Parts: sequence; C-alpha cells; structure tokens
Amino acid sequence: MHYRIIAKTVAILQMIIAGFHILCGVLALSFHENSSALAFFSSGALLVFGCTIVLFWLRDIKPQTLSTKDGFVLVTASWVGAVLAGALPYYISGSIPAFTDALFETVSGFSTTGASILTDIEALPKSILFWRSLTHWLGGMGIVVMAVAILPLLGIGGMQLISAEAPGPTVDKITPRITETAKYLWYIYIFFTIAETAMLCFGGMTFFDALNHTFATLATGGFSTKNTSIKYFDSAYIDYVIAFFMIMAGINFSLHFKLMTGRFKSVFIDTELKFYLSFIAIATFIIMMSLHGTVYSTYASSFRYAIFQVSSFITCTGFATDDYEKWPYLAQTVLFLLMFIGACSGSTGGGIKVIRIATLLKQGLNEMKYLVHPRGIFVLRINGQPVKKNIVYAISGFFFLYITMVLVVTLIVTSSGADIVTALSSALTTAGGIGPGFGMIGPTENFAFFPDYVKLTLCASMLLGRLEIYTALVIFTPIFWRK
Amino acid sequence: MHYRIIAKTVAILQMIIAGFHILCGVLALSFHENSSALAFFSSGALLVFGCTIVLFWLRDIKPQTLSTKDGFVLVTASWVGAVLAGALPYYISGSIPAFTDALFETVSGFSTTGASILTDIEALPKSILFWRSLTHWLGGMGIVVMAVAILPLLGIGGMQLISAEAPGPTVDKITPRITETAKYLWYIYIFFTIAETAMLCFGGMTFFDALNHTFATLATGGFSTKNTSIKYFDSAYIDYVIAFFMIMAGINFSLHFKLMTGRFKSVFIDTELKFYLSFIAIATFIIMMSLHGTVYSTYASSFRYAIFQVSSFITCTGFATDDYEKWPYLAQTVLFLLMFIGACSGSTGGGIKVIRIATLLKQGLNEMKYLVHPRGIFVLRINGQPVKKNIVYAISGFFFLYITMVLVVTLIVTSSGADIVTALSSALTTAGGIGPGFGMIGPTENFAFFPDYVKLTLCASMLLGRLEIYTALVIFTPIFWRK
Repeated sequence: MHYRIIAKTVAILQMIIAGFHILCGVLALSFHENSSALAFFSSGALLVFGCTIVLFWLRDIKPQTLSTKDGFVLVTASWVGAVLAGALPYYISGSIPAFTDALFETVSGFSTTGASILTDIEALPKSILFWRSLTHWLGGMGIVVMAVAILPLLGIGGMQLISAEAPGPTVDKITPRITETAKYLWYIYIFFTIAETAMLCFGGMTFFDALNHTFATLATGGFSTKNTSIKYFDSAYIDYVIAFFMIMAGINFSLHFKLMTGRFKSVFIDTELKFYLSFIAIATFIIMMSLHGTVYSTYASSFRYAIFQVSSFITCTGFATDDYEKWPYLAQTVLFLLMFIGACSGSTGGGIKVIRIATLLKQGLNEMKYLVHPRGIFVLRINGQPVKKNIVYAISGFFFLYITMVLVVTLIVTSSGADIVTALSSALTTAGGIGPGFGMIGPTENFAFFPDYVKLTLCASMLLGRLEIYTALVIFTPIFWRK
Repeated sequence: MHYRIIAKTVAILQMIIAGFHILCGVLALSFHENSSALAFFSSGALLVFGCTIVLFWLRDIKPQTLSTKDGFVLVTASWVGAVLAGALPYYISGSIPAFTDALFETVSGFSTTGASILTDIEALPKSILFWRSLTHWLGGMGIVVMAVAILPLLGIGGMQLISAEAPGPTVDKITPRITETAKYLWYIYIFFTIAETAMLCFGGMTFFDALNHTFATLATGGFSTKNTSIKYFDSAYIDYVIAFFMIMAGINFSLHFKLMTGRFKSVFIDTELKFYLSFIAIATFIIMMSLHGTVYSTYASSFRYAIFQVSSFITCTGFATDDYEKWPYLAQTVLFLLMFIGACSGSTGGGIKVIRIATLLKQGLNEMKYLVHPRGIFVLRINGQPVKKNIVYAISGFFFLYITMVLVVTLIVTSSGADIVTALSSALTTAGGIGPGFGMIGPTENFAFFPDYVKLTLCASMLLGRLEIYTALVIFTPIFWRK
C-alpha cells in the first residue's frame, strides 16, 4: 500500500478545501459576519498548517503507479478527509454546535444528498449557507473531476475509479486524455451554473439565492437557503427553470459534451437517456392525473407540481415545492419508487442509476426468452452494443447489495424507535442521495431528532451510496488486507 | 402446443378437487350443515359432470412428450383451474357472497398465503372452514406432488417444472424415479400431519381445530378457524408446537427424507439449512430483546412470542399470537425484513427463499474479492459444491423481478387510496405467501375493504409468487407464442 502517496493526495484535497474556506471567510467579511469569518479563517488556517506539514514531510514522494487497492483506499480516504475538513466551519462558528450534526450536514452536502439537521435554515449567517451550498457544488462534480484530474498525475489509469465516482457500467472516454475529460466536464458544469444563475436572477431571485440554488440544483443536492425550500419563491417560472436544470444535471455529462460537439446520433441512440426520459414522462403523467381534482383544480398546476417533484426525486435532488406527504397515496408511492431508480450514470444524480435498472429489465426479459428457447442466443444491447455477461453480473450484484444495505440501515434506524416508513425512507433517501423522505423526515421536517448513532449510520449510508457501496465496503473485507 | 393433453390434465385435477368437495359434503352432513352439504355436492357434481365430458371427448389422447412451453401452460392452467374450482363451494353456499372474494380466499388458500377477506371466521359453517384449511394442505404440498406424479405420466422429464413448483435452484433427485419421490414426500407430509394433530389434541385443542391448524401449519398457510388466530388458545405449549412445525415445514422436504433415511452428513453440510436456522436465531434474539421490558416483563414470554412470530414470518405462514403492530418498531422491522427472505426451497414456505438470499450474499462477497484480485478465481459453493455462473445469474434475475413485481403491485394497491405501508406490505405478503402484513392489513385486520381490482391484483401476485413469477409471466411474452 502506497500510504504516503495517499496521504499526499488527501492533503492536496484538504488544501483546496482550505482555499474555499478562506474564500468563504472573505465573503463573510463582505457580509459583515465577523464571527463566521473568523471560523472560516481559523479552519482554513488549521487545514493549511496541517497539510503543509504533511506535504513538507512527503515532499520527495514522486507520482508512481498505484494499484487498484491503493485506489480504493485513496478514494475512500479523500471522501472521509473532505467531510471532516468540511465540517470545521460549522463547528468552529457554532452555527451547528454538535460535531455529529456538523458532520452529518457536511456529508449530506458533499454527497449531494441534501438531508439536513437544521431546524431553522434562515437563522444561519449567509456565508455559512454559502459554504453549505458550495459543498454540494464541489461534491457533485468537483470531487469527481478532482479525482479524475489528480489520480492520473499519480499514475493511476483511473477508469476503474471513475466508474466508482462517476458511476455506471460504462464511462465513455470522451476525449482520449483523462485530464482533458476533466477540463471539458468542468466547462459544461460552469456553463450550466452561469446559465441557471442568470435565469433564476431573471425570475426575480437575488443573486445570492440564485447562485445557492444553482449549486444545489446542478449537484442534484437539494440544500436551500430558505426554510420552505423552493416553495418560498412561489413562482411557476422558477419551478420550471429548476426542474429543467435538475433533469439536465441528471443526464450523463458525456452526453452533454457529445451534444455540444454535434454528435447527435450517439445521443439519440442512448438507451439510458430514453429510459430516463420515459420514467420522467410516465411518473409525471401518473402524478399529474392523481393531483388533478384532488389537490389542484387545474391541469396546469397539477403538471407544474408533478414534474417538479418527479425531477427532484428521480435525480435525487430533494427539493420540494409542496408538502407531497399531503398528496394522494398513489402520487406518494410513485415518488417512493423513483427513490429506487435514480438518475443517469455519469451525472451528478444518485440512486441505483437508470442504466442499471434498464440493464436488469432487459436481462429479465432475456431470461424469459431463455425459458422458452433454452438453446437460443439472446443478446442484451445497451446503446446498440452488446453488453458483456460479467457486466450484467456485476450490476445484479450491486442491485442486491444496494437493497441489502437499505434494509440493514432501515433496521438500525428503527432501533431508535422510528416507524417503518420513516426508517425505510431514511435509508433510501440517504443511500440514494435524495434528502427528504416520508414519515418523520418529510419535506417539512428534518433529521435533527435522530440520536447520534443513527445520524452516523446515515452518514455512512450517504457515503457508501456515493461510492457505489463496493469502493468503501471492500476495504473492510479480510482479503483486502491479505498479502 | 398440446392443448388437448393440457386440458385432460387440468380435468383430472378438477376431478380430484371434486372428490374433496364430495368428502367435505359428507363432513357437512355429519355436522348437520345441510346447506353447505348441498353446496359441496353441487360443486362436486358440476365439476364431475364437466370433467367427464372433457375426459370422454379426450379419451383417445395418449400420454406423449410435452415441450417446455406446454409445461408452462400446463402448470399455470392447473393453478388457475384449481382456484376457480376451489372457489365454487364458498360462492354456491353463500358463505362468501361475492365471487371475487371467494376467488381471493381460494387463491390465498391454494397458494398457502393465508390472507383473508373474511371479517368473522367463526360465523362460517365448520365444513366450509374445513375446506378452507384443506385448500392450504392440498396447495402447499398436494398440488406440487400431483404435478410431480402426473407430469411424468405425460412424458415430461419434469425437473424444470418441479423447480417451478417446489422451488429453489436445485431440487435433489431424492430417489431416481420421480413418482417414487412424490410418494415419499407424501409419506413425510402425512407423518407430520398426524404428529402435529396428535400433539395439538394433547395440548387441549379439539380434533377439528387441531386438524385445521395442522393443515395451515404444514402448508405454511395461516388460515385459522378462530377470529383471533392462535392467540385464541393462549397456551405456551400450543405456541411452541406450532412454531416447531412451522420451522419444520419451512425446511426442504428432501432434507427430511435424508434425515429419516439416516443420511445425516448431507443434512449437516446443507448451506440453506444453516442460513435458515441462523436467520431464525438472529431474528428471534433481536425481537426477544426488543420485547423484553417493553411489551413483556419476562424473558420467557418475550422468547415465546418472538420465536412464534419469527417462525410465522420466515416460513410465510402468517399466524399471529399477538398484535405485533403494537410491538416496538425494531421488532416490526425485523418481521418486515423476514417477509423478503422466506423459507427454504423445496419446502411449503414462500418468499424469495433462503437459498437465493444465501447465494446472492455469497456472490456479493465474491464480487468484492474480484475487485481486490481481478484475475483471481473465487468459487461460489453451496453445500460444498461449486455453483454454475448461470444459476447465480438466474437467481439475480429472479431477485430483481421479484422486487419489481412487489413495487408494481404496491403502486396498483396505492391507486385505491391505501397508504404506503399497507400497500407495500400487501404486495410483499401476497408475493411471499405470508398473509397478514402491516398497516390496514395487520394481524387483527383483513383484506375485505379493498376494491375488486385490488383483490384481483393481489390474487395475481399470490399466484405469480407461488409459480416463481417466470412460469406464469413467460406465457405473456410475444416470443412464447411465436412459431
């Protein structure tokens, strides 16, 4: 194990986080939030000081080829390091007095889950809120791309690890060189950020609110600067803008790149995109019909609230424009099912991912063909290409592990006295990276009331979900540590 | 497609059911239940009349080799035929006035689910209650063995189909000849029936109650002759006897046969049995600890109610000795999770089956080993034997299909206005063959309030669950009907 290279990489990441802390400190000063500024500068200084020592000590460590094992430890250590560093400003400033809570909020931020332990968001200093949204933006894409850009410098081929972070069975090589890829992904991300911020400002949001909500949208995170989330703005225009960008953020970013470079054909034949848009269309239609005449009197309102909530759930963002727990049970159940599916691979969204569900559905149909013609040959195609048996195999394994993890987390949550709906949706919402759920963690509630051990379990669930379970779990197997 | 042989087989099965109707009619006379007797004799006569015409018309059809396709149609048609015939006495006698309800009760009986639409069980004539319990006993094992004994006569090799009815990846050839197998399975079944009936009588039950509850236990069905189920008897002895036989009925019957013929070693190394008993032990322990001090003051009572309810859920029987919806949520969630697992393959129990869960767990571990050593060779062993890749593949497919089916049924149930817990547990309880669930279908409630289309959906869920989904679903694929 190349512990020193791993330590060096984690230290570099912490340095970057320290940089953002200092940026937030400057912002705090401009808002005249002096105690927050002090907290940001303290945590920034602390991280810079610690990391400088580590980097000085490891100054002679040269990039070299890392093994797959190193990769797993590196990715997991980077995430754990990032969330620990990210929790400092909350804790030091006293905005979130308990460290477990600060950690929960940070894990939720970086993992782009959007689950919160805050009971009064608007009471927080603006700079702290900005850092909170920034963890989304950095987590959703930044850390992915950082890993893509930094790992190759260290000599890792990277593809296996990218598939751990920008998940899905196939991450296209958009451009041959992986650092190039990272650069283009950043361009797209920043382009979307500017576009959405401008459009939200145009709709009447302040620049601060627009930027914060853009961060949360594009990362499919879900943190808001308002206690009542997007409902606060009560604007159909804003709802549609955010819904549109949530759907965009849930699409594989390599497709955006293809679209921008004029490769329309490969976008058109994309299996995952077709399934994704179909799921959105079907779910929106069912919910709209269910809302019409029961909750809203017009089709226009029913459609507006339906498509927003569907986009929010399938991309695992977690924004709410309405208290969907007051909707008819059919509509609630459709949302509940979307929690299982999730967004596209290679997007900032969470969940099991559409490509996996699509593959398993196709595989299920193929199995039936084999029952009829046991000697027949039925090829499973994704994007027109045959899929290798062992990929389907790995996806099946992932699906089982995901369900098992959700059920185990459910069990731990109920041990604290929570009911089944609360527990099951806590497990699903954290594993999938959604945020709010049903029961006691609905859109108008938060996670504050859970005891510490449940909060820590949910932190683990968020991280495991983001690391596609295997990446982090493999480190805890005995075979990993055997020579 | 050999439609005429299929029709002939279904007719023979209906004749057997007619025979049992006439038996119940005689029983009704002895109970002085004249209107029930008339109903049984009428339905018996109707079936005999109809089947005689069919069999006379098909008298020249000789047994011949059936294709796999024929097999799927035959098995599905037999089940559909059996439930339609089985519903007649309820409907004709007016005990269950609506035909959908009568059908639901029969499907629930033959599929050994134990879900009921009856609001007052004790108001029913004894002969009708006996027929109700008898559908369990016949469904749980009888129809399996009938299929084993009749299909070979028709020239089908059978193993593929047995695996559809007495499910699990491997059904051992207990004895070389399949009809022999059927005979031995019957011996074991009847031996257990006599043993349990005697032991329940010894505990103070009337012979009638003892026999009915034995039918429901050994079939892992769950129908009781009392409104308050086993709680009515309020006897620790009876609880333990029934728990013991539920656990026995949930074990692969070929293991019972091996045990009786002294082949202890193959029982001892059985992977599925080890997992099954471990699940029971762990679940009982967690629930016992959770009940102690909250619901019951002594460990003895906590253990008694815990092991009974665990046995009832893991084997998918559905008996209740307590209103478990009043238990701590942790205990409830453990029961909820057991609904997913189910009993052993080749038993009368339901659910996904322990062998599948065990295989998928082992596969999940193996996947992690492959992540560490991509070129390593890790063999998945069940009962000490390596398992072929395509079997694991089929199990993964089954798991996905099972979860998908449960979620689709959940969606349909919520469309009637039911809440998520009620809907999800309705789906799980019917697919797994358990009976009661949580929410509005808890142990003290029933399925009567659902609208007809939900009842029919749940009937389909019970049948699909019993036919391992694929067997019935494959008939609805276009490829099945293509030349």
